[in-house]
Amino acid sequence: MSKIKVGIVGGTGYTGVELLRLLAQHTHVEITAITSRGEAGQRVSDMFPSLRGHVDLVFTDPAQADLKNCDLVFFATPNGIAMQQSQALLDAGVRVIDLAADFRIKDIPTWEKWYGMSHASPKLVAEAVYGLPEINREKIKNARLVANPGCYPTAVQLGFLPLLEAGVVDASHLIADAKSGVSGAGRKAEVHILLAEAADNFKAYAVSGHRHLPEISQGLASMNKGALGLTFVPHLTPMIRGIHATLYATLKNTQMDLQALFEKRYANEPFVDVLPEGAHPETRSVRGSNMCRIAVHQPQSGDTVVVLSVIDNLVKGAAGQAVHNMNLMFGVAEMTGLEQLALSP
Amino acid sequence: MSKIKVGIVGGTGYTGVELLRLLAQHTHVEITAITSRGEAGQRVSDMFPSLRGHVDLVFTDPAQADLKNCDLVFFATPNGIAMQQSQALLDAGVRVIDLAADFRIKDIPTWEKWYGMSHASPKLVAEAVYGLPEINREKIKNARLVANPGCYPTAVQLGFLPLLEAGVVDASHLIADAKSGVSGAGRKAEVHILLAEAADNFKAYAVSGHRHLPEISQGLASMNKGALGLTFVPHLTPMIRGIHATLYATLKNTQMDLQALFEKRYANEPFVDVLPEGAHPETRSVRGSNMCRIAVHQPQSGDTVVVLSVIDNLVKGAAGQAVHNMNLMFGVAEMTGLEQLALSP
Amino acid sequence: MSKIKVGIVGGTGYTGVELLRLLAQHTHVEITAITSRGEAGQRVSDMFPSLRGHVDLVFTDPAQADLKNCDLVFFATPNGIAMQQSQALLDAGVRVIDLAADFRIKDIPTWEKWYGMSHASPKLVAEAVYGLPEINREKIKNARLVANPGCYPTAVQLGFLPLLEAGVVDASHLIADAKSGVSGAGRKAEVHILLAEAADNFKAYAVSGHRHLPEISQGLASMNKGALGLTFVPHLTPMIRGIHATLYATLKNTQMDLQALFEKRYANEPFVDVLPEGAHPETRSVRGSNMCRIAVHQPQSGDTVVVLSVIDNLVKGAAGQAVHNMNLMFGVAEMTGLEQLALSP
Amino acid sequence: MSKIKVGIVGGTGYTGVELLRLLAQHTHVEITAITSRGEAGQRVSDMFPSLRGHVDLVFTDPAQADLKNCDLVFFATPNGIAMQQSQALLDAGVRVIDLAADFRIKDIPTWEKWYGMSHASPKLVAEAVYGLPEINREKIKNARLVANPGCYPTAVQLGFLPLLEAGVVDASHLIADAKSGVSGAGRKAEVHILLAEAADNFKAYAVSGHRHLPEISQGLASMNKGALGLTFVPHLTPMIRGIHATLYATLKNTQMDLQALFEKRYANEPFVDVLPEGAHPETRSVRGSNMCRIAVHQPQSGDTVVVLSVIDNLVKGAAGQAVHNMNLMFGVAEMTGLEQLALSP
Repeated sequence: MSKIKVGIVGGTGYTGVELLRLLAQHTHVEITAITSRGEAGQRVSDMFPSLRGHVDLVFTDPAQADLKNCDLVFFATPNGIAMQQSQALLDAGVRVIDLAADFRIKDIPTWEKWYGMSHASPKLVAEAVYGLPEINREKIKNARLVANPGCYPTAVQLGFLPLLEAGVVDASHLIADAKSGVSGAGRKAEVHILLAEAADNFKAYAVSGHRHLPEISQGLASMNKGALGLTFVPHLTPMIRGIHATLYATLKNTQMDLQALFEKRYANEPFVDVLPEGAHPETRSVRGSNMCRIAVHQPQSGDTVVVLSVIDNLVKGAAGQAVHNMNLMFGVAEMTGLEQLALSP
Repeated sequence: MSKIKVGIVGGTGYTGVELLRLLAQHTHVEITAITSRGEAGQRVSDMFPSLRGHVDLVFTDPAQADLKNCDLVFFATPNGIAMQQSQALLDAGVRVIDLAADFRIKDIPTWEKWYGMSHASPKLVAEAVYGLPEINREKIKNARLVANPGCYPTAVQLGFLPLLEAGVVDASHLIADAKSGVSGAGRKAEVHILLAEAADNFKAYAVSGHRHLPEISQGLASMNKGALGLTFVPHLTPMIRGIHATLYATLKNTQMDLQALFEKRYANEPFVDVLPEGAHPETRSVRGSNMCRIAVHQPQSGDTVVVLSVIDNLVKGAAGQAVHNMNLMFGVAEMTGLEQLALSP
Repeated sequence: MSKIKVGIVGGTGYTGVELLRLLAQHTHVEITAITSRGEAGQRVSDMFPSLRGHVDLVFTDPAQADLKNCDLVFFATPNGIAMQQSQALLDAGVRVIDLAADFRIKDIPTWEKWYGMSHASPKLVAEAVYGLPEINREKIKNARLVANPGCYPTAVQLGFLPLLEAGVVDASHLIADAKSGVSGAGRKAEVHILLAEAADNFKAYAVSGHRHLPEISQGLASMNKGALGLTFVPHLTPMIRGIHATLYATLKNTQMDLQALFEKRYANEPFVDVLPEGAHPETRSVRGSNMCRIAVHQPQSGDTVVVLSVIDNLVKGAAGQAVHNMNLMFGVAEMTGLEQLALSP
Repeated sequence: MSKIKVGIVGGTGYTGVELLRLLAQHTHVEITAITSRGEAGQRVSDMFPSLRGHVDLVFTDPAQADLKNCDLVFFATPNGIAMQQSQALLDAGVRVIDLAADFRIKDIPTWEKWYGMSHASPKLVAEAVYGLPEINREKIKNARLVANPGCYPTAVQLGFLPLLEAGVVDASHLIADAKSGVSGAGRKAEVHILLAEAADNFKAYAVSGHRHLPEISQGLASMNKGALGLTFVPHLTPMIRGIHATLYATLKNTQMDLQALFEKRYANEPFVDVLPEGAHPETRSVRGSNMCRIAVHQPQSGDTVVVLSVIDNLVKGAAGQAVHNMNLMFGVAEMTGLEQLALSP
């Protein structure tokens, strides 16, 4: 099998370097170009010494990169870039996975409200497949354009999915209390994510409304029959990687076997691991891996179900899930390039 | 005014060293004895070099300490000690503040179930005053025996208090999602709280039931008229100090002025700070201080209220609140010894 | 005694907020103005919530601040500001403490080389007293202008001082291997000090030459008779506060009593604590305090002496030492406002 | 090629779980047994959830493990175990790699002094090959018994090696200032390595003498002609993984090309990466990888050379180097199973 020719647009953020880490070890991939406006001409491994000896690439200017000869282009850019450049690539026969938010939300006015700009290609939004393999595996295989999910939305949707599909909870008052490591804020020079600000500290943020709220709501609504109400509160926790979502819902029936429900739903999913009854997943158990680990609890056998869902925000919440989507799109075995064990301790 | 003669039983844990830090700077206190079975004879400042030059005490054996000449004894011991030793002290005219859980829960069978032992002095449980000044200020002033609240219970109760007193939420489905720094687990040699285990990691624990659940439920029930249902999920977050409680409840009326409700309730409280509308309190803003900072949110103006409540678990959640109680009991100005500003960054 | 009227120029960095924390608790100080070009009009406690309830100030524009009515002005500004504004203040009878580097180095060409700018007031450099009280106590008392030492220079000089004054080491090959918490880099939006970059990581930096090298060399040379050679290697360690300097020198005589030498030198110093023989000072033992703790070792009784010196870079290494200098300048008891115990854990 | 049958004795520490992480992904290895006295009968992945889905083993009691049918046994035990059990395995034709210190030091009295016990098999010490491939590659290939180096000794020896082999420094006053993450202390329930003790803190330890001192001295002496003097000061830094060694020596000739010396020495080494002139290696650049990254500096062109050497203490400093040794012993390509890129950020 010939290798997939891959291009990466915008490779200087955490999503970009994580894509490189995974793709450099992927046996079916050849990275042919990586672009950066600001770093054109610089060796990638000078910027990211962890890649020395494994990634022998130089950042190229986006204007000069020959992306149209790629089989696949990943956009690891800020929001608003992929929506401008994807059509030309698709027209040239190149498939696209966008790791930003441009194609995630189907309702254009909603997207424009939360992201504060006009959408440049609503038609592509309609075509794009939401790249959560546990829901859209078959559609992803044939997609030209995949909208890779956000990190919080991945952890939250996988946690609620079995409950909503089975219709066993009151969907009008769902609560998602999510905690993220600081890499989720990106590799940006901002004061509030300095070590001296964020270490030994814990805070909620964006309680009045976070951009991932409409994405999560859209996903949960599609699993649920009927009205859906979600309160989503993200928090910043002093660690580098990892998301822990603690999910709450009211059960319609306190007698059901929740453990069996979750185990059955995810029995064939290579990247969702339902823990034994009574367990508490730790974010470090997925550090650097593409796994989502989930536990379901029913405290005091009451009518509140608590789901604990952990992912590595940069892997299952970004680059790893993108590679998973690529594998599906190109008919490669799903786990290829994604079999690294978590780094623990 | 003559100084309060203070004894400390069990001074080798984090609560003990924090009491010493605060009392060493308290202008109305003379520490006359500090006991430790295991460390008798050792200089306190050899064990805790941060106290060098300020605390000139030696640990004495509990059997030989002359505690009956104290005005006040703090128990900073494991659960189950204070209930055995308090009666004799009270009989000798010594007042007692227990920082452990022995006198916190009024219902003896409930206490015995959660703490796994028989209670040695149920009569004192009936007498003991629960030392949350924001609720029991007057009773504390005259108390012989004060049960100092737990750390999670302090953060959670202060967050729910205005809502429950005012009767504005459905109390049957309260959710308290709480995150604690690792010092909350104590100064104990256990693997799961090693830096190499707990750093760069996040996890929930004891979802099926934590000892602070009955304490919180008892407190909330006393604020509320009618049935109360609470789901309490504690988490371990990779920092030394701090608790962040994120509280959820369903509003009976979405039109009420929550900000005013909170500001009014705490207008005269020296150690509760209601932040401006839209704010997110950070745990570091109370690091080392006795303050509880609270913000109240109503996302998307819906019917879910979200309260954010932060404390330093070792200060307002333990030693600082104990000093506050002492001040009340002995007629000292409330803020004496507790005016340190938070250490930030 | 009337209060010292204090102004702070540039109060939005870590040095500024730390000055505020200390001065707000200082019984002999009244802060009359704090300036910030960028934040004029903002409440100080909105920017630093840890100060809420204790600091009731608004940032004023430097152009409009009435600093000439102050008794003392602290410059907590970037390098290059104090040298432009100090003369006018001194002329108006205001005394000045500069926490930046403008007046630390006596040799103007050296300063200009390392700081990359022309010096605006060489005459004031000649007048300025280097504010290390353990060396210049008497001069500081009468100084109009004090150059507050850098953080690394404080830890390193106090560690080498007894050895060089006594002339017991070969001063031609001194080594200072220093490790700093990330707050030492300031409250600046830079990628390399993000939590996601600097946490769980350790690195040296500026091995070819750091700005504190000439400052340290100048100080050590003044203690030493004869040629001096210093290698200074700073490192970034993943913590918020603290400097640990590990110092190496070759002894001229392996039989001397190093412990006695250090204890005698610092016997009367309120802010230098020589630990018992064999001890290892921890940075957390001085977290938030103005203490420098030092231990001296002679491994295997060989001819290499190892000195361990720890400070809080924001207190003894900046704001605390500045307050100490103020106390000396205004005849206040030295420890006033600086008696806080370290926050540990 | 048939797989190497591997047994692991003592798999519950950090070295053990790291061996499992690496061996589970090694294409030429079959793990046939893992033993633990305390955890016999427990599933390995219940203890280490990061291994779920990849390691399907149960801890067996050492007394019942059939280790004699292995091709190779790793000892990941405390010091003093391998010296008792290795002879029987070797007699049965099993090769052995000891990750503890039993066979590292050739001089038996020295070993007995530093490790506080009598040595049970001095003859095997004589036979054992010190497993630093960069020095002993050929001997390792044919070894029956390999003494895997300590973590500090690996970082320090690789840093000094080019200088001592070339004889370009004064070897009588070498200084190794080393900083380790907390996992280096092992997975042991001890108070001083709790997160609440070790986070946001930095300290030296064992300045009077650390067990790795004689191991390093022995190694350096074998590279050097003539007398050798080493001062070794280890420090604990608040991170999970990583060692940073900062090495100092006095150059005999300030004109030599140090960069070329290092690059040439390590040109063919797959796991030593000499950084470009002026660079500063970060421990995170080797997190989870078997690489040692080194930079050499000559500050101000003086006569002091500074070498910066970083490794992951659990990989190149323990389990990864052991796998490298195994590859050499069994004729497998050296990099097999060790090609993971560092996890960064």
